[in-house]
Amino acid sequence: MAVYTDVSGEQLAAFLADYELGAMLSLKGIAEGVENSNYLLHTETGYFILTLYERRVAETDLPFFIGLMQHLAGRGLNCPQPVKNRRGEALGRLAGRPAAIVTYLDGMWPRRQNAKQCAAVGDADALLHLDGEGFALRRPNALSIEAWRPLYESAASRADGVHPGLSRFIEGELSWLEANWPHGLPEGVIHADLFPDNVFFLGEKLSGLIDFYFACNDAFAYDLAICVNAWCFEPDASFNITKGRAMIENYRRRRPLNIEEIEAFPALARGASMRFLLTRLVDWLNVPPGALVRPKDPLEYFRKLRFHAQAKSIRDYGADA
Amino acid sequence: MAVYTDVSGEQLAAFLADYELGAMLSLKGIAEGVENSNYLLHTETGYFILTLYERRVAETDLPFFIGLMQHLAGRGLNCPQPVKNRRGEALGRLAGRPAAIVTYLDGMWPRRQNAKQCAAVGDADALLHLDGEGFALRRPNALSIEAWRPLYESAASRADGVHPGLSRFIEGELSWLEANWPHGLPEGVIHADLFPDNVFFLGEKLSGLIDFYFACNDAFAYDLAICVNAWCFEPDASFNITKGRAMIENYRRRRPLNIEEIEAFPALARGASMRFLLTRLVDWLNVPPGALVRPKDPLEYFRKLRFHAQAKSIRDYGADA
Repeated sequence: MAVYTDVSGEQLAAFLADYELGAMLSLKGIAEGVENSNYLLHTETGYFILTLYERRVAETDLPFFIGLMQHLAGRGLNCPQPVKNRRGEALGRLAGRPAAIVTYLDGMWPRRQNAKQCAAVGDADALLHLDGEGFALRRPNALSIEAWRPLYESAASRADGVHPGLSRFIEGELSWLEANWPHGLPEGVIHADLFPDNVFFLGEKLSGLIDFYFACNDAFAYDLAICVNAWCFEPDASFNITKGRAMIENYRRRRPLNIEEIEAFPALARGASMRFLLTRLVDWLNVPPGALVRPKDPLEYFRKLRFHAQAKSIRDYGADA
Repeated sequence: MAVYTDVSGEQLAAFLADYELGAMLSLKGIAEGVENSNYLLHTETGYFILTLYERRVAETDLPFFIGLMQHLAGRGLNCPQPVKNRRGEALGRLAGRPAAIVTYLDGMWPRRQNAKQCAAVGDADALLHLDGEGFALRRPNALSIEAWRPLYESAASRADGVHPGLSRFIEGELSWLEANWPHGLPEGVIHADLFPDNVFFLGEKLSGLIDFYFACNDAFAYDLAICVNAWCFEPDASFNITKGRAMIENYRRRRPLNIEEIEAFPALARGASMRFLLTRLVDWLNVPPGALVRPKDPLEYFRKLRFHAQAKSIRDYGADA
């Protein structure tokens, strides 16, 4: 669930007085997302999402996230559109927290993902990469390769308690990634967290993307590698080559991959697995007492990483080299 | 939070095919309520609440709860109105659970309660008692005095770990209540859980009552005593006599109390405190590992119970005898 900060009617009424959304009618906490407090807000003019940004999101990053949603929505991408107040600002303060109201996006995220949906995600990710062009702000990827060793070191002594030999395995993989990480690939704005629960569908049609709070500037192909990790494995950790092909080839139809990106793909996929293995491992080992959020299983990405470590080329993902 | 059962788009589409609500547009888990899984449902015809009934609610009680909401809504009371499917049924099955769709009620529950709101709740509770008349089904109160000693016994050995002397205190209070519990008071349908988070306001005006899943047949004045417990104490457990007066006198304006109810009031308030002290104590001592719900503090009702044990008459609650 995700309601860390409670909001009273009085606080909300005062906050909404700055907006042209009419009087408040209701506010309900939403049991989705883990980083921030999310509410469904009903006012006289419609339904919206109200987000209160919690400690895990750096306040200095908020102009990037909010500005990016504005930029992408302006380009026609279906994503939450920040609502500006009477002073033209999309970011305010509520209950002691930075807060923003965004438009409500219909659709449901797919609990079981099929190849058709993977194709749609490949297309949407490429579209996002193209639409991000011209966005003025920059945000380095705080969870890219430079961050991995410090994350590992904070968890190393307890990693084997999660899985025997995990510490040594990560150590070896990290060394390989540090020696082989691709540089100089085409870069731009990436979503960096396009997991199934951040992609909405209405029937067969992709209806929108949400949760831009890991978005940053990094290699486009790394973003595609994150999507492949998040969408194209089966629950038993086997790679579904039909899904992989559907996602990657649909991406390329919209934004072709160059030869460097094609060759780097297995390493990028390996690095993407490492990123989620490490952040999940750290979360797993540091569940605060009384936490109301269940941590995600780090070993899911241990298994995916082992697949990538065996991959020789993008063909192993079902795509054409 | 309260989403115990996840629902996929395919499951929801199949469920909605039975209703005349149009196609589904979105479904979001709501971080409110603790007994059931609640979702905000958006379809082509509007916004609704979808509830999946979890194990703590007995399936055989559902016709009473759903029928009561239908009955009360038919009388004009503002409460969620169950939506019937094409076969005229308001109760179906979804994701292996009994499930119902009810109308969406605007309003916000008051985080800090004032005397005006207490007055409105007194009035609404009396209205509910009058509107419940003629409802055909019956449900005994499963959490009335007969249930208290077994609850206590299941917690007795560990009660002193929560607060020194608590076990002995409850023992004494229980004996007093069993010897002095009023019988033969006017009875009917009561809400039995009209806490602030179950009462919505729009501005100053009470806009609706929700959560009828403890509703049952019991003494009307006992329901009022529950409301007084839930609304008229300050955070430091001191009784606010202005709030008490506002609530009780407004109740009586709509439904006068007879002399037996007036005389029984301190005992009823004492019993109501015991009911919440005991259920909270049992929940407190039995948090399942990995629970995503934080239990409520039982000692809040220990302090309230001590106030009631000192009360001599309804005048101690601010009301006229």
